[in-house]
Amino acid sequence: MTEPAFQDEQTLLPAVAQDAETGQVLMLAFMNREAYQETLRTGRAVYYSRSKQRLWRKGEQSGNEQVVKQVLIDCDADAIVLRVEQLGGAACHTGHQSCFYREVTDQGLRVVGQRVFDPSQVYGPPQA
Amino acid sequence: MTEPAFQDEQTLLPAVAQDAETGQVLMLAFMNREAYQETLRTGRAVYYSRSKQRLWRKGEQSGNEQVVKQVLIDCDADAIVLRVEQLGGAACHTGHQSCFYREVTDQGLRVVGQRVFDPSQVYGPPQA
Repeated sequence: MTEPAFQDEQTLLPAVAQDAETGQVLMLAFMNREAYQETLRTGRAVYYSRSKQRLWRKGEQSGNEQVVKQVLIDCDADAIVLRVEQLGGAACHTGHQSCFYREVTDQGLRVVGQRVFDPSQVYGPPQA
Repeated sequence: MTEPAFQDEQTLLPAVAQDAETGQVLMLAFMNREAYQETLRTGRAVYYSRSKQRLWRKGEQSGNEQVVKQVLIDCDADAIVLRVEQLGGAACHTGHQSCFYREVTDQGLRVVGQRVFDPSQVYGPPQA
């Protein structure tokens, strides 16, 4: 077994991107086989966007690509960890370093993550 | 919005357990709303096992519970990170610290993770 457990071309497996230097979990997305293979081939993280229903080359719009340093798979081969260098310093479309920038507390959600860029500067003003 | 985007009682969201001290990604599993709420209430990681189709209280058999130190949710509120203290030192049923103990290389899979216990000592001999 040398690849994750993609049953067919439609199978989506969860993939966690982790900062290779700091260990911070940056985001969680999904990969189909094509995304996985392109990730290995190019050394840049490629996911499958469930909302757009197409390959999503991370950073295709923002330029914030993920340079893949190491690919790990789990015991059941149905989950993937990418240890990456996050170009631009932020993985999240909200401008935060990590998509996991909010902590669950008894008082509700609390922002704990750092914002690196202003989304309107990167993606343009919010759509009406 | 104070909880993840569980659409109904059947919705499963991916949850990443990360060692709160070292940052190592230990495992990826799924939660339904009940698992999530029990996790918050008890401070121990509870998942929903897709294979067993029931709540899976991590460590219920091995004793290797996960003490939850922090719960983070992502920008879309459809993925969860648990920062945990892993009791027993190993999250994986194979006895490795992390389920992500194998690296993908050009030559195939390479074990990079540390084995902490012998599964046959914890779960009994392999089933015939």
